[in-house]
Amino acid sequence: MPVKLNSRDADFEAHFVDMLSAKREDSADVNEVVTGIIADVRGRGDTALSELTAKFDGMDLTADQLRFSKQEIAAETAKVSAEDRAALALAAERIRAYHARQMPEDMNWTDPDGATLGWRWSAVSAAGLYVPGGQAAYPSSVLMNAIPARVAGVERLVICVPTPNGIVNPLVLLAAQLAGVEEIYRIGGAQAIAAMAYGTDTIAPVDKITGPGNAYVAAAKRQVFGRVGIDMIAGPSEVLVIAEGDQNPDWLAWDLLAQAEHDADAQSILITTDEGLANAVAGAVDRILPTLPRAQIAGASWRDYGTIIVVRDLDEAARLSNRIAPEHLELCVDDPEGLAKKCRHAGAIFLGAYTPEAVGDYVSGPNHVLPTARSARFSSGLSVLDFLKRTTMARLTPGALAAIGPAAVRLAASEGLQAHGASVNARLATLNEREAG
Amino acid sequence: MPVKLNSRDADFEAHFVDMLSAKREDSADVNEVVTGIIADVRGRGDTALSELTAKFDGMDLTADQLRFSKQEIAAETAKVSAEDRAALALAAERIRAYHARQMPEDMNWTDPDGATLGWRWSAVSAAGLYVPGGQAAYPSSVLMNAIPARVAGVERLVICVPTPNGIVNPLVLLAAQLAGVEEIYRIGGAQAIAAMAYGTDTIAPVDKITGPGNAYVAAAKRQVFGRVGIDMIAGPSEVLVIAEGDQNPDWLAWDLLAQAEHDADAQSILITTDEGLANAVAGAVDRILPTLPRAQIAGASWRDYGTIIVVRDLDEAARLSNRIAPEHLELCVDDPEGLAKKCRHAGAIFLGAYTPEAVGDYVSGPNHVLPTARSARFSSGLSVLDFLKRTTMARLTPGALAAIGPAAVRLAASEGLQAHGASVNARLATLNEREAG
Repeated sequence: MPVKLNSRDADFEAHFVDMLSAKREDSADVNEVVTGIIADVRGRGDTALSELTAKFDGMDLTADQLRFSKQEIAAETAKVSAEDRAALALAAERIRAYHARQMPEDMNWTDPDGATLGWRWSAVSAAGLYVPGGQAAYPSSVLMNAIPARVAGVERLVICVPTPNGIVNPLVLLAAQLAGVEEIYRIGGAQAIAAMAYGTDTIAPVDKITGPGNAYVAAAKRQVFGRVGIDMIAGPSEVLVIAEGDQNPDWLAWDLLAQAEHDADAQSILITTDEGLANAVAGAVDRILPTLPRAQIAGASWRDYGTIIVVRDLDEAARLSNRIAPEHLELCVDDPEGLAKKCRHAGAIFLGAYTPEAVGDYVSGPNHVLPTARSARFSSGLSVLDFLKRTTMARLTPGALAAIGPAAVRLAASEGLQAHGASVNARLATLNEREAG
Repeated sequence: MPVKLNSRDADFEAHFVDMLSAKREDSADVNEVVTGIIADVRGRGDTALSELTAKFDGMDLTADQLRFSKQEIAAETAKVSAEDRAALALAAERIRAYHARQMPEDMNWTDPDGATLGWRWSAVSAAGLYVPGGQAAYPSSVLMNAIPARVAGVERLVICVPTPNGIVNPLVLLAAQLAGVEEIYRIGGAQAIAAMAYGTDTIAPVDKITGPGNAYVAAAKRQVFGRVGIDMIAGPSEVLVIAEGDQNPDWLAWDLLAQAEHDADAQSILITTDEGLANAVAGAVDRILPTLPRAQIAGASWRDYGTIIVVRDLDEAARLSNRIAPEHLELCVDDPEGLAKKCRHAGAIFLGAYTPEAVGDYVSGPNHVLPTARSARFSSGLSVLDFLKRTTMARLTPGALAAIGPAAVRLAASEGLQAHGASVNARLATLNEREAG
């Protein structure tokens, strides 16, 4: 049974804190196994990749079969229906247009002391995208990871996607093609992460690895972090819907169930000012749930983590939302922009009744890789910035060094770093000699 | 002896790769100890903090003595000389001015389909800054961490700085005051990180923790990551100086030694097109080294990790620089801007002979918290962005949903997520009924 709370109840705070602190993910400790796999790939390269792929994916591949050939990609993508192709192309174009606006600008200015300062953005040289195989192989995730990298200007983009027992998802390859990725390897798991981080004879190493994956992939990303950059380690997905009484309960029920059908660990929360709506949505969920193809998954999620909270007013809803810091926040209210101003922590906000989260998952344009498990308090969804880095720049004239150098010398002395100060003083001494001479 | 290489030598590539892959940090495995400390602070709160502070810092403090009082801060900061105060104030103002330009703008636009899209930046609510105690207590680092947080708009800013055996650095407290931080606790180590991440009765938890620290602090930051955000885990510092033959060898020697005096694990590298300059700088280093107060530290760094490479031309220098991806890059050449364009991976670039790295450590304005150990390939120095997060926003009109919703339905079906599609279709059905009726 989902939790039903009312903020007027005396024990509300305790129940709310329970919900906030519930651990939804029971991730197995796979660190040791993963450490072994990474060491194996580092030590034996392609041979290890072939053996591990045979073991985990039931695929016997020689080193030169690890990569999809152009012919294979063409043959697979040709299987996609015109309708699916058009839908994916529309999604790709909208995602590209949104992310193109994220490109930051270089800055450069000269201050009154004569110091020319600024910074410069540049793309990482090579990025690797992990794509899960089997049921969780989402072509939309390929677009959401690869397109920001392309927009950032990453020169080399690699995809690793396992093909357990030879099963290939043509839409994943088509999504890669739409994003302009041609270097695609049929490997998965921790071995794929290790190969991208350290390289093998066949696979050159990359500088940054992104993309979702199971517990082994997540552990491998954590372990190679530092050697390469990684995106976030995503937890189970979640949605918070805030609704006023005049909203359509069926629409809200579908939205809650769309989140629940992802994963038994997903969480769907409704906060409403209207007890009648709360009951109507609960009824609609119960009515719709058994009809879903993924009723078992969605049912487990709703039973274990589903939550409905009745609050006094929207200000209280915003305060609770800020404590939840949801990955997805739907504001089905008369003034969603006004309410959004009060909701400080959220990965993505969907404004108004005609913006169901599902459009954000695919086609609206913003990224669907978003911070989970309250991390929207301090982090952001995937963006072009994840594939860029900033180099700060400074150039001092002799006059600028004369103006601000002495303060550096003073501070260096206070920190006991004499050579720091001397590196400035040596220059200033030469300048003074020149003036004197 | 520092390594001397010449790119014309047959075995150059092997030696260069050796240098690149040398592990400079021999960090003890303190994970288990740190796990225990974190669990202790989570379980016993202030009591654990008092006990651990007595054990590690030789300080007996009750819970209400953990925080510096206003009177204590005033008394300590009054000890600072007028000259040091002026130097620190100049640094603070220049750092503030530089970082103020980093504030990103919110975006909002409506596309031809009627979708209003954009994003919004907001500050993390509370940030904690760790400041090492004892010898490595650098007031400049307080400014470099706290000012970007202030510029970002972080409401609550906390500093933890241990005071082993009661030793307080007045400049650290003054730097905090200049940055507007009043909540300062005299605790350190993994226990301080745990307190900031999980909170105690006395110390409310924060959302993001930044700042340098020893192996225990670094391990603790890694372990609390996810619960809170963290900045990078910095390794030993490094500088790469690229110089043409007409440069002053003494200035370059001071720059190399300024890096070396930080830490025996620091690394200083000179790449030059001129063998004569290479020898002159090596000679200058040997001459200056014994005169340094920190000769032992700088000597060990120069002996173990110092490197001088003679190359054919500046293009080759740039290519090697990109493989090193240095934290600090000094370009002491006639056309530093031209060479900088070829150097893609660096935390900070110092252009021209009058911009020694030491001014960047203190007063030029850019941040001195920078990516080490080749991580400039994929990451950036500390900035205002580290204290902000981005929420993406979308609002669809009914017309926009009718235009792009069907593609989402199609893609949801291809991924087997029926409720996703239905959440869109339920709305489209209502729209169609309205049109029909």
